Amino acid sequence: MVKGLIQKNNTKIILLVLDGLGGLPVNGRTELEAARTPNLDALARESACGLHLPVGYGITPGSGPGHLGLFGYDPLSCLIGRGILEALGLGLEVTRTDVALRCNYATMENGLVKDRRAGRPPTAETRKLTERLQKEIPGIDGVKFTFGAGMEHRFALVMRFPEPLPPGAAAINDSDPQETEKPPLPLKPETPEAEKVADIATKFIKRAGELLKDQPRANYVLLRGFSTHPRMPSFKDAYGMRALAVAAYPMYRGLASLIGMDAPAIEGDFRDELDYLKANYKVFDFSFIHFKKTDSFGEDGDFEGKVKKIEEADSFIPEMLSLDPDVLIITGDHSTPSVMKGHSWHPVPLIIKGPYVLGGLLKGFSERECLKGELGIIPSTAIMSMALANAGRLKKYGA
Amino acid sequence: MVKGLIQKNNTKIILLVLDGLGGLPVNGRTELEAARTPNLDALARESACGLHLPVGYGITPGSGPGHLGLFGYDPLSCLIGRGILEALGLGLEVTRTDVALRCNYATMENGLVKDRRAGRPPTAETRKLTERLQKEIPGIDGVKFTFGAGMEHRFALVMRFPEPLPPGAAAINDSDPQETEKPPLPLKPETPEAEKVADIATKFIKRAGELLKDQPRANYVLLRGFSTHPRMPSFKDAYGMRALAVAAYPMYRGLASLIGMDAPAIEGDFRDELDYLKANYKVFDFSFIHFKKTDSFGEDGDFEGKVKKIEEADSFIPEMLSLDPDVLIITGDHSTPSVMKGHSWHPVPLIIKGPYVLGGLLKGFSERECLKGELGIIPSTAIMSMALANAGRLKKYGA
Repeated sequence: MVKGLIQKNNTKIILLVLDGLGGLPVNGRTELEAARTPNLDALARESACGLHLPVGYGITPGSGPGHLGLFGYDPLSCLIGRGILEALGLGLEVTRTDVALRCNYATMENGLVKDRRAGRPPTAETRKLTERLQKEIPGIDGVKFTFGAGMEHRFALVMRFPEPLPPGAAAINDSDPQETEKPPLPLKPETPEAEKVADIATKFIKRAGELLKDQPRANYVLLRGFSTHPRMPSFKDAYGMRALAVAAYPMYRGLASLIGMDAPAIEGDFRDELDYLKANYKVFDFSFIHFKKTDSFGEDGDFEGKVKKIEEADSFIPEMLSLDPDVLIITGDHSTPSVMKGHSWHPVPLIIKGPYVLGGLLKGFSERECLKGELGIIPSTAIMSMALANAGRLKKYGA
Repeated sequence: MVKGLIQKNNTKIILLVLDGLGGLPVNGRTELEAARTPNLDALARESACGLHLPVGYGITPGSGPGHLGLFGYDPLSCLIGRGILEALGLGLEVTRTDVALRCNYATMENGLVKDRRAGRPPTAETRKLTERLQKEIPGIDGVKFTFGAGMEHRFALVMRFPEPLPPGAAAINDSDPQETEKPPLPLKPETPEAEKVADIATKFIKRAGELLKDQPRANYVLLRGFSTHPRMPSFKDAYGMRALAVAAYPMYRGLASLIGMDAPAIEGDFRDELDYLKANYKVFDFSFIHFKKTDSFGEDGDFEGKVKKIEEADSFIPEMLSLDPDVLIITGDHSTPSVMKGHSWHPVPLIIKGPYVLGGLLKGFSERECLKGELGIIPSTAIMSMALANAGRLKKYGA
């Protein structure tokens, strides 16, 4: 909606995502309420605050939809295929000429699937198999293959075609029959555009089977989640900003790279991420930096662990403020209450620090305090618009 | 939106609708603020609260759209024809093979309508006429007729066809000219699909006119509001839940039966409804129970009467809690401020009691306190999504 209103300037916007930030009370206090967060509290007092709804009321988002919303892309219309997410999570690059797949090693006997996961072999073992696939099957019929080794029986495959694929090119069923003692399903293109992809994937299944036929368990491959690059506008096209993604976890930088952000591979923890940001943010208009561990402890059901990680995140705030961004957004991609040991649908606390805010409404930063904020409960896709506005990057609409 | 995310489990959801719950202040306090409601207040303190907007800002809903929104159906796209509502309100069943109509007894002289309401004859008198129509015209051309006697000049007709009707089958104008000293309008099918229905209805007008021709006033019938079953997905298809509707008033259970809820005829007041619920709710995943009198006193402009009815509703809360539902929703289908003597557009106070809420934000249950709640002001259609989420009945969206 903002596209026609974009104007460029020299402002800097930073988005800090504390993954899975939102929580629920245990003994009356949420993780964020229990944490000692003097820096976030001070920011909340002087900023525009509220909560954002990642996808919709009652809808628990995965990390993909959660982040897309923060980047201003409607997570309901911008669907990212399972094959793409798997490939991104394993650190593979996905471009507009690619088809990405999730693959399983499986056990086949007399044409029937005996074990869809090949007995969950050790990762070290399947990693070697995947390296062998990469070496022996680097491509088929001019299509380049890149494999990514996953945990146990899992791997990903990105098939890079010589040119961009037409819509519908990945409309192909899974070969996984979802049950044992059944033959694998033949790949059937659901559209004429998918015929070439199905043909190459069928050849790959055959060649992989020949290569693996002497393996005791992992003697076959099952393919799932055929997907092409989601045809979203790039971040640069949408907002006229050059964007940097600083994330140690491959899936998050993979997501960012899908919309054209610079997403360098970074090793280490948030300390390393922040060092990278400090060294590089001046070259970019927009920088996204990802703090993972709040989500991890929430997923583990570790209330105290999540509290500590929130406190750790708080301790980095002065350093982030020292970069003096024109707009600083601090929020999560979704809630991960430790009592639920998983993502949830609850709106996520949000701070937008910028030059043009009311402020003065909250005592500190928490789910309940943010309800008193000037933003109310907003769709996640509204955050970018308000950040752009505060950065002076949106023209007036109409006269 | 939630359809692809539904997962089943053994949780129970109960929806208590206090009809016309929301109000406006008289001497500074709304009906809900003036009422002594210790049980609702305690619930509000520990639950997710807010207000819901039944149809849209400034839109005053009828009971049909009000309830559809609570059931999670968009009241703007799910339109229920006037003929259907009239038939349901008179206790008639409406299925997918039916056309329903509102009818008036009228006075005709020399081919002109002299009185569109036949002088508003006493209900006891027209009831006999309607019984005679039922006896003498049980059907036409294989289409079965069921009549429902209404107040004064009103009655309803359900025409049951042998098979489901195509879309557009009820696209027929009213025969009521809306003015006196005019001839009734001939029925004109607006689509080819409506020809058969128009033909049968025209034959009915003729036969009813012959049957009534010696009546002093009610010697003719005018037909309005031709409508077919709204093609909405059933509640079970939408949510995977078996649903019970407990409502003594025919229209509410009629609405519920339209979307496939079990809606047994129940005599008596809320005490009887609650007894029925207690005896039967275990067989269902979702139970809707309807408290009518809050609306009735609001419609009468009786502030104190509405206050008393709210207090009566409050007294039943402990019994409802003793059923130990996983999720309990308490709200109204719309507001009926007694100062307005009718429905209004004002958002309606809402409690969602469930396992995964913040709580602790309100002092008690009222329009003004609910503004402090964690839900904010939400569309009525969001209530079901959040109830399903709290009941663990929604899968994650995306990975």
